[in-house]
Amino acid sequence: MTPEEFRTHGHALIDWIADYRSTLHERPVMSPLRPGVVAAQLSAAAPEAGEDPAAVLADLDRVVLPGLSLWQHPEFFHFFPANAELSSVLGDIASTGLGVLGLSWESSPALSEVEIRTMDWMRELLGLSEGWRGVVQDSASGCALTAMLEARERASGFAMHAGGTDQGRDRMVVYCTAQAHSSVPKAMLLAGFGRQNVREVPVDADYAMDAQALRAIVAEDRAAGLRPAAVVATCGTTATTALDPLAEIGRIAQDEDLWFHVDAAMAGSAMLLPECRWMWEGVELADSLVVNAHKWLGVAFDCSLFFVKDPVFLEKVMATHPSYLQSSHDEDVVNLRDWGVPLGRRFRALKLWFMLRMEGAEALRARLRRDLDNAAWLAAQVDAAEGWERVAPTPLQTVCVRHVPAGLDPADPADAEAIDAHTRASAQAVNASGKAAVSLATLEGRWMVRLSVGALGTEREHVERLWKVLGEAVAR
Amino acid sequence: MTPEEFRTHGHALIDWIADYRSTLHERPVMSPLRPGVVAAQLSAAAPEAGEDPAAVLADLDRVVLPGLSLWQHPEFFHFFPANAELSSVLGDIASTGLGVLGLSWESSPALSEVEIRTMDWMRELLGLSEGWRGVVQDSASGCALTAMLEARERASGFAMHAGGTDQGRDRMVVYCTAQAHSSVPKAMLLAGFGRQNVREVPVDADYAMDAQALRAIVAEDRAAGLRPAAVVATCGTTATTALDPLAEIGRIAQDEDLWFHVDAAMAGSAMLLPECRWMWEGVELADSLVVNAHKWLGVAFDCSLFFVKDPVFLEKVMATHPSYLQSSHDEDVVNLRDWGVPLGRRFRALKLWFMLRMEGAEALRARLRRDLDNAAWLAAQVDAAEGWERVAPTPLQTVCVRHVPAGLDPADPADAEAIDAHTRASAQAVNASGKAAVSLATLEGRWMVRLSVGALGTEREHVERLWKVLGEAVAR
Repeated sequence: MTPEEFRTHGHALIDWIADYRSTLHERPVMSPLRPGVVAAQLSAAAPEAGEDPAAVLADLDRVVLPGLSLWQHPEFFHFFPANAELSSVLGDIASTGLGVLGLSWESSPALSEVEIRTMDWMRELLGLSEGWRGVVQDSASGCALTAMLEARERASGFAMHAGGTDQGRDRMVVYCTAQAHSSVPKAMLLAGFGRQNVREVPVDADYAMDAQALRAIVAEDRAAGLRPAAVVATCGTTATTALDPLAEIGRIAQDEDLWFHVDAAMAGSAMLLPECRWMWEGVELADSLVVNAHKWLGVAFDCSLFFVKDPVFLEKVMATHPSYLQSSHDEDVVNLRDWGVPLGRRFRALKLWFMLRMEGAEALRARLRRDLDNAAWLAAQVDAAEGWERVAPTPLQTVCVRHVPAGLDPADPADAEAIDAHTRASAQAVNASGKAAVSLATLEGRWMVRLSVGALGTEREHVERLWKVLGEAVAR
Repeated sequence: MTPEEFRTHGHALIDWIADYRSTLHERPVMSPLRPGVVAAQLSAAAPEAGEDPAAVLADLDRVVLPGLSLWQHPEFFHFFPANAELSSVLGDIASTGLGVLGLSWESSPALSEVEIRTMDWMRELLGLSEGWRGVVQDSASGCALTAMLEARERASGFAMHAGGTDQGRDRMVVYCTAQAHSSVPKAMLLAGFGRQNVREVPVDADYAMDAQALRAIVAEDRAAGLRPAAVVATCGTTATTALDPLAEIGRIAQDEDLWFHVDAAMAGSAMLLPECRWMWEGVELADSLVVNAHKWLGVAFDCSLFFVKDPVFLEKVMATHPSYLQSSHDEDVVNLRDWGVPLGRRFRALKLWFMLRMEGAEALRARLRRDLDNAAWLAAQVDAAEGWERVAPTPLQTVCVRHVPAGLDPADPADAEAIDAHTRASAQAVNASGKAAVSLATLEGRWMVRLSVGALGTEREHVERLWKVLGEAVAR
């Protein structure tokens, strides 16, 4: 495709995206398609001859859009928000159009220097100390894996790095709660700790880690001759946005020499608000920290902010120095490839840089506060409504609810089954209606509905409409 | 940013990208900036108030562009090509603009179904059998890590997954050559095999793995009570595009029950050409395979094609089933999150789908053949020129050369040092000139210059100019 053809079709695509964003609210939130409907419209054979680009772009409307669930829709209360602020979309367009790679500082200096500076901005905006160094990664899953690999090597004195899997080392154990995101135990297993050594620390009534229980279990493990290696605490769990007590956990990590990773993938965005920073008090005790800028904050996916206190650990485990990547400035610069798994590096910081500059931190804070207000309003409706219960605290923007039909008793096992069926059916009805999207999740073995407020376009009127739709769904 | 503001600035950005691509050839290929020059132009403090988007876009010219090395430049012969065909850029723009995530099939059905179909197209275009299943991942590094984690678990009977690091299992060993990409031993170390158990298999005169040596080392290791777990073969090594003999290695892998991963990150693109398929004869014996569509083929970074023979292994090690990700169709669909490390998933297949449809396979093949012809022409010039030598075979598009000044003897150690200095100085002079970009790398401990032909805009005239620039550099 020539630059002039790109100009023509690029303009058409920009218009298409602007129109899509302007008319999103008229479409069903969740795609109603059944499996295979999209695939049936795709040619079975690979294309030999080129098609008119306009025909391909037309397939965005014909084939793709009906098969999408619309994460940018103002009635999207599913999962966690994955906002793509249009300013960050511009940054990503620039990045892809530029087509440069950061294999080393030298391979595109501005790519590394903008990334490092923008991560410093985020450190400042999040209220973190100057002791942190940051790098953009793809996902909180990748950051958790990186942290667990670091933990494995630090705890073993870099024995696996050197000696491998048959070393007669101590049996290492790692800690999180059952409320940790699924990527956390996955990272622990991929790092090789083994399922039998992933300890589930009990939670308190608010679904946050019970720090005293952690201390006791670590002590037991040590008494049994095992080697406690790492603890992962969550700031804003996936099910209920519960807040593990970081200060207490951090002190235990210090006392016990554990790698302390904080998964603030969700709640991290709220730390732009000084009034929320109590939620992660103690975060300075952590060794590593992830905040997903591609969630509530608004940077188009993917943009995970990974902070570490001491990049030397990263470099010890991740660095490579093949001759074809050496450059004359290697002594004076940071080569960000040594701070993660992949060598190849997009100019991902550009979308963060664009969004921060074009929106400004004040506007981002105002949007986050709007969402907290809307969630508080919704929580108040739930609390005041007959038959509804809020099943977990609402420190942030996710409201966890259950409707109990009249005459059913949640404490009665038979009724609990019926309530579960009612919960699932009503949430599925909401999603099938196309009017709103909500999540189902379990808490203490029982189903609940998660209402995660915070899509870019979600105003009070949309939350009011959600509350109405929910009322209709449980009354069916 | 509102959709209408996005429309305005998006149009401006499309024009900017079209102009940048049209005028690339007038700019220096490698950025001449010294460390810190870009950073010095970036505000130290995070932006509180939003700026005019036009001012931010203007900084692409003022701050960013001077600090970039231009991978899309027709005189870019550095590293390997990282082509970003403008048709694929359109696909990536659409993906970012859509702002949807594939956490599960249900979370955006079209995202998964387009990815699966497009990977089937690629399987067909590459001449692979129907036994392969494909998924898009971020990088060959990530694919190598995934493969090594699979290998670790299969070889140990899933012992580490269950039991962790203290199991009294066999000492596992893994195999590659010193010519494997740096991400391969890195993946082996991250998977926990340990440096002492990463075996470097000797190479033949063409820098390809010596399969008979592999068989002998595996036998020795087995005799010593160790457990051979995996072999990684490379189809198109980074230094010289050497071709490990996949058929022989595959037979050994079968006989010895090794996980067989093929890194065809570079050469994979050439497999669109039937006349090149001899290069990976035996690939069907592999368990896993990576082809980087974001290299020579032309899909904007990042787009690694990861193929496996049996996704059940992936799912056994990678799958998670938290309640908040369950959907009513989980029995009928593939959830691609279970085929890799990250949970979050961009609509990355869109850029591959767009490029294949808009360009068509025939045009891609014609471009690859153009580059092979240009590389053969360059190799012929080197062979015919006084003082120049080609230090490795040129099966693909990378020509590895060295210039030996008159009177120096490469076999004499003192002269070899002088030749190394001359090689480094001349390549650095080329890069500093802004006229072309080339790589330095070592081969058998001596420096050489890698000339990797294959940027989108590279025509014969550019290769002719490179040859002239090289001649001037060594004559300084």
